[in-house]
Amino acid sequence: MNDFRPLNKLDNFQNKKIEILLKNTSKITGVMKAYDLNLNIHLEDAEEINSDSKIKLGTLLLRGSMIISVNEAQ
Amino acid sequence: MNDFRPLNKLDNFQNKKIEILLKNTSKITGVMKAYDLNLNIHLEDAEEINSDSKIKLGTLLLRGSMIISVNEAQ
Amino acid sequence: MNDFRPLNKLDNFQNKKIEILLKNTSKITGVMKAYDLNLNIHLEDAEEINSDSKIKLGTLLLRGSMIISVNEAQ
Amino acid sequence: MNDFRPLNKLDNFQNKKIEILLKNTSKITGVMKAYDLNLNIHLEDAEEINSDSKIKLGTLLLRGSMIISVNEAQ
Amino acid sequence: MNDFRPLNKLDNFQNKKIEILLKNTSKITGVMKAYDLNLNIHLEDAEEINSDSKIKLGTLLLRGSMIISVNEAQ
Amino acid sequence: MNDFRPLNKLDNFQNKKIEILLKNTSKITGVMKAYDLNLNIHLEDAEEINSDSKIKLGTLLLRGSMIISVNEAQ
Amino acid sequence: MNDFRPLNKLDNFQNKKIEILLKNTSKITGVMKAYDLNLNIHLEDAEEINSDSKIKLGTLLLRGSMIISVNEAQ
Repeated sequence: MNDFRPLNKLDNFQNKKIEILLKNTSKITGVMKAYDLNLNIHLEDAEEINSDSKIKLGTLLLRGSMIISVNEAQ
Repeated sequence: MNDFRPLNKLDNFQNKKIEILLKNTSKITGVMKAYDLNLNIHLEDAEEINSDSKIKLGTLLLRGSMIISVNEAQ
Repeated sequence: MNDFRPLNKLDNFQNKKIEILLKNTSKITGVMKAYDLNLNIHLEDAEEINSDSKIKLGTLLLRGSMIISVNEAQ
Repeated sequence: MNDFRPLNKLDNFQNKKIEILLKNTSKITGVMKAYDLNLNIHLEDAEEINSDSKIKLGTLLLRGSMIISVNEAQ
Repeated sequence: MNDFRPLNKLDNFQNKKIEILLKNTSKITGVMKAYDLNLNIHLEDAEEINSDSKIKLGTLLLRGSMIISVNEAQ
Repeated sequence: MNDFRPLNKLDNFQNKKIEILLKNTSKITGVMKAYDLNLNIHLEDAEEINSDSKIKLGTLLLRGSMIISVNEAQ
Repeated sequence: MNDFRPLNKLDNFQNKKIEILLKNTSKITGVMKAYDLNLNIHLEDAEEINSDSKIKLGTLLLRGSMIISVNEAQ
């Protein structure tokens, strides 16, 4: 099997601002500092983005099993 | 048991545009760059397709446990 | 324990048209080409069957954890 | 610990008509041919029983993780 | 760690009538014959108890992952 | 990593009355007799607490995967 | 792979007041005393924060699988 290890792509996101979509439909942004194989992610300057507001969360640990997708903030 | 390793079919999709259906009912398209045995998938030029709009996501990592199905974009 | 390996029954379905019921209540048909012990299934000529329409999906990989049941198309 | 292996009770159901209740609230009947430790079950002459109709499914493989309970058809 | 093996308490319930609450909110009673470490349970003379009726199920195998709690019938 | 084994805190609750919140939103109280690493818990004198009533459950085994939190009864 | 062990970030939170968001949408605050690799967390002086009230919970053990995110109380 051709296994390119998609999680390695997260290395490109280090110290960059990323967007994370969660299963509870909320969206989180922040600067990615660390991740592990379960997709647990440590963010700095994290914010929860809602349609009409932002909530500052600061240093944040997200549980990987709640994550749908990760992309670089556009 | 006759085990043909269905995940290997994803090798045929490499560098091709694929459609991914997620458990939260959203549909994602993008060019498949990498996958692993948990079905985590790295896409480039990813877009979320809604009934009346497309949202550009760029480089995207999708968590395999959220995926229902993968097929080549028709 | 008497363990007859029910998954082996899928060998009988190879290259035959099967129906798959998914947890999201949609029904998929297609010609079964491969499966694994997690019930991941590779179909050719796959279609999503709705009450009033069919959507052609072509080559399709279905994630096993989304599958409720598999039977030969009637 | 006193472990009587409850799954072994399924041996008594072999070649008998059983009722299976699924998490999606549907009820399936059929003649039990095989099961494994994950409670995957292979049925012959399977039918989905609804309040006002029966749908013939023939040879059926049910994914164990979808099963709530199994009992002999009354 | 102080690990008293709570599942062993089920030994006290053997051949006694127990009540089982399931995740789908239904309640099952029956005489407990066997269980395993996944909390799969084999009951005899099982009944599903609803607010205004009882459904006889006879010999029943319950999947442990569906169980919320087990107590002796009051 | 600094791992203080939070489950060990349950040792302090032994033979004390605790409150357990379950995923199905019900609240259970009882005297904690035993637990294991999956958070399965054996209670004596258990009661289900509702907004306007209490249901006596006696000796109760709770499946750990259903538990949200455990605290000493206030 | 670049694996910085995001869970280690929790060491910084020890003996500090943290906010925990749970899958059942409730928010818990408390002083973090211990955690493990499953994200089970032991809090002291825990409180459940609702839009218009706080419920004191005292010493609390939270099951890791229910946790969405952890951040320092703002």
